[in-house]
Amino acid sequence: MHNPQLNKHGELQHLLTIEGLPKSIIYHILDTASSFVSISDREVKKVPLLRGKSVFNLFFENSTRTRTTFEIASKRLSADVINLNIAASSTSKGESLLDTIDNLAAMHADMFVVRHATSGAPFLIAKHLNDTRQHHVHVVNAGDGRHAHPTQGLLDMYTIRHYKKDFNNLTVAIVGDVLHSRVARSDIHALTTLGVPEVRVIGPRTLLPGGLEQMGVRVFHDMNEGLKGVDVIIMLRLQNERMSGALLPSAQEYFKSYGLTPERLELAKPDAIVMHPGPMNRGVEIDSAVADGPQAVILPQVTFGIAVRMAVMSIVAGNSGGDA
Amino acid sequence: MHNPQLNKHGELQHLLTIEGLPKSIIYHILDTASSFVSISDREVKKVPLLRGKSVFNLFFENSTRTRTTFEIASKRLSADVINLNIAASSTSKGESLLDTIDNLAAMHADMFVVRHATSGAPFLIAKHLNDTRQHHVHVVNAGDGRHAHPTQGLLDMYTIRHYKKDFNNLTVAIVGDVLHSRVARSDIHALTTLGVPEVRVIGPRTLLPGGLEQMGVRVFHDMNEGLKGVDVIIMLRLQNERMSGALLPSAQEYFKSYGLTPERLELAKPDAIVMHPGPMNRGVEIDSAVADGPQAVILPQVTFGIAVRMAVMSIVAGNSGGDA
Amino acid sequence: MHNPQLNKHGELQHLLTIEGLPKSIIYHILDTASSFVSISDREVKKVPLLRGKSVFNLFFENSTRTRTTFEIASKRLSADVINLNIAASSTSKGESLLDTIDNLAAMHADMFVVRHATSGAPFLIAKHLNDTRQHHVHVVNAGDGRHAHPTQGLLDMYTIRHYKKDFNNLTVAIVGDVLHSRVARSDIHALTTLGVPEVRVIGPRTLLPGGLEQMGVRVFHDMNEGLKGVDVIIMLRLQNERMSGALLPSAQEYFKSYGLTPERLELAKPDAIVMHPGPMNRGVEIDSAVADGPQAVILPQVTFGIAVRMAVMSIVAGNSGGDA
Repeated sequence: MHNPQLNKHGELQHLLTIEGLPKSIIYHILDTASSFVSISDREVKKVPLLRGKSVFNLFFENSTRTRTTFEIASKRLSADVINLNIAASSTSKGESLLDTIDNLAAMHADMFVVRHATSGAPFLIAKHLNDTRQHHVHVVNAGDGRHAHPTQGLLDMYTIRHYKKDFNNLTVAIVGDVLHSRVARSDIHALTTLGVPEVRVIGPRTLLPGGLEQMGVRVFHDMNEGLKGVDVIIMLRLQNERMSGALLPSAQEYFKSYGLTPERLELAKPDAIVMHPGPMNRGVEIDSAVADGPQAVILPQVTFGIAVRMAVMSIVAGNSGGDA
Repeated sequence: MHNPQLNKHGELQHLLTIEGLPKSIIYHILDTASSFVSISDREVKKVPLLRGKSVFNLFFENSTRTRTTFEIASKRLSADVINLNIAASSTSKGESLLDTIDNLAAMHADMFVVRHATSGAPFLIAKHLNDTRQHHVHVVNAGDGRHAHPTQGLLDMYTIRHYKKDFNNLTVAIVGDVLHSRVARSDIHALTTLGVPEVRVIGPRTLLPGGLEQMGVRVFHDMNEGLKGVDVIIMLRLQNERMSGALLPSAQEYFKSYGLTPERLELAKPDAIVMHPGPMNRGVEIDSAVADGPQAVILPQVTFGIAVRMAVMSIVAGNSGGDA
Repeated sequence: MHNPQLNKHGELQHLLTIEGLPKSIIYHILDTASSFVSISDREVKKVPLLRGKSVFNLFFENSTRTRTTFEIASKRLSADVINLNIAASSTSKGESLLDTIDNLAAMHADMFVVRHATSGAPFLIAKHLNDTRQHHVHVVNAGDGRHAHPTQGLLDMYTIRHYKKDFNNLTVAIVGDVLHSRVARSDIHALTTLGVPEVRVIGPRTLLPGGLEQMGVRVFHDMNEGLKGVDVIIMLRLQNERMSGALLPSAQEYFKSYGLTPERLELAKPDAIVMHPGPMNRGVEIDSAVADGPQAVILPQVTFGIAVRMAVMSIVAGNSGGDA
């Protein structure tokens, strides 16, 4: 199916996934974010780019943290923000997803930031808006099922570029529960698009999906092997529900095999950076000594995340809709 | 009891019900809304009419959809909006409704948008504010029990005028569960006030209240009879709880007798419009072919609803309080 | 432990407790609040003092009323406000309190308004921010456990000064469940710091803590004795959960012994004022005739509360952080 995130001029009208996104658009987002990083340091942290625009945070799945980052980004762009926790709303009255979308679009919404437990929901929404010529509404995917979390992927790229300057000579390792991680998927697409020569994935067989090699990724089950000589380590959060399930023996066992300890970190390059999308499970996937250590860039990721979301929102809002 | 929604100059200081509202005030609201419709199309959708005013959305009954429309309308008027879901708040601590109201008024509130499961609650609040000379606070009824939903009634009138130009020669049919519908009640009051010569109500005996004829309404139990030659069809939402109750055999049976299908729609005038307050139960009270068809004006209703709420809020805020 | 609320210049960088706060700072807050009282009366109730600042309402314990007062105060200072109900958020995902704090601080937060069921939580947060040199974030305690509710204490002082002009010759009685009341604790610290010559506490033995005399307070178990000749009566709310517990026989019994009736009020000075932090239990700790009577200043307390919170927020935001 045609990807509806680009308009007929090849510009970004929705952000749904990093898969298939041209390198030039990724760079444009990172460069735009760069200009917003300094705004957040100023006394008055607002720019009027989205003044008078109505941004709807449509969270069909609860996520206070992600919703907050988008809410802040929207307000720093001077948009009006409406938070809708849709689980508690019309869907409980039996209204269909697309009726809800049409209804909100009819209120002259300018943007939907969508979080949904079902993979593909933001795609479905964007396609419907395009099909029904409701081109004034832009969709930003804030995480859908196991599919994609593109703004997280982009802020990870921003962070890597910030510390490593470019992507040409890097070895990047993604560690943990890749199977259930939309973050991992978005990171892999971004890293390969940007030309990172070696992307590694490290995890137990039960938590890695098939087909990773076809995505251009090297697979490791032994963490010590996988960390050797890497420049960037992206730790994934281990969902609580996995720890007691059939996929893993226990959190302690997991930490023994895949927890990032100071000793293991020494296997990476001396200037390697450690990333984590948060929230962290200290003592499960990451040791506190690493999380709070000098190589961790986990809090800068959060800071850059605001700027990246401001960039994405201002870019899609500036591109008129309309399919090829 | 004296209706507290008009001040001693006969101006609208609260909007509580359409019943008894002079035709001139209804027209003033529709005309004001008309000027706001164009604002919502502009690049910057804000006007500073309520800048610095504090609007409280007091939702004693949950309704994300209606709350959202008022929140957007408030923000487009540049007001500060505070959302209070009161069920989860002080009332659970045993505070009385009027103590809560006095408390919020003491914070220098300018407007309360009130949704309440009990008929008459907004009336009680407005009367209390008048009696205690707290004239700086204006009340807008966002739906109370089975009593009234005046902004829905007004946006329905706006929609009818938009498509039919005037009210003088129309036949309007309201179809469905009139017994439990505050929308129906507000629509009937508005239509008769505006001089619509024939207002019909169509529904099963179990879902129609007594006394409709005294309101100037023609009652039909056979939908095919009732739809003949009408200009406007207002479909009502069938509440889920009715479908399994004693009042109705089943949703399927209901649809067979009172669902709006393309075939039935042909009984109306060829240029008849189809309205629905939302959220729709497709396949229960309305067929998807009608809901998505060329005669449906359901989404324009939503768009006009924002403008009508902006009009109501700016009008009441501009009229000083004080009883006769 | 060193109190982290003052910076190395002795200025208020966080507001955590009134205990140990210099008299000059309390007066500075009251005087600043005074200038904000008039703003709330104006047509446009906003000042741009916190424009572009991000204020986070971190409510780990639900309190719609207090959250609303801070939200209004923030908006009238033109800040961007983000409401976070943290119980429903990351802590449920197992993230530690301080990781949540670091995360939000990394979003370039300017202020955390913190409500927490655990005494000392805002103190812990402020100390952590100071220790980690995150000096751009200011903490305001909106109530922690049984420990402190400093903005309530300050608004009570504002109210007393408003009606009694100064604190030098007053007798103030605090009546009720002092044991579980953070309001009582903050009031006692404020009153003694401001030099009120006689502070009384009235309540049953089961609801008074030990050590009151060391705080400079006179203890009464007989309400009629305790009210004699007082200038100010501060009634405390009786929590519902106490009424059915082992500490009290019943709400009716409590009212008989400690409810403020018109007859009892006559024991105080004729111009005595009656205060209550709200929400009131009418007929439990206070008779409606008193609550609605001419000596009650309960609603003015609410109005002054907004101004006092605006004062606190603008003062701490203006003082750069950094420990001695």
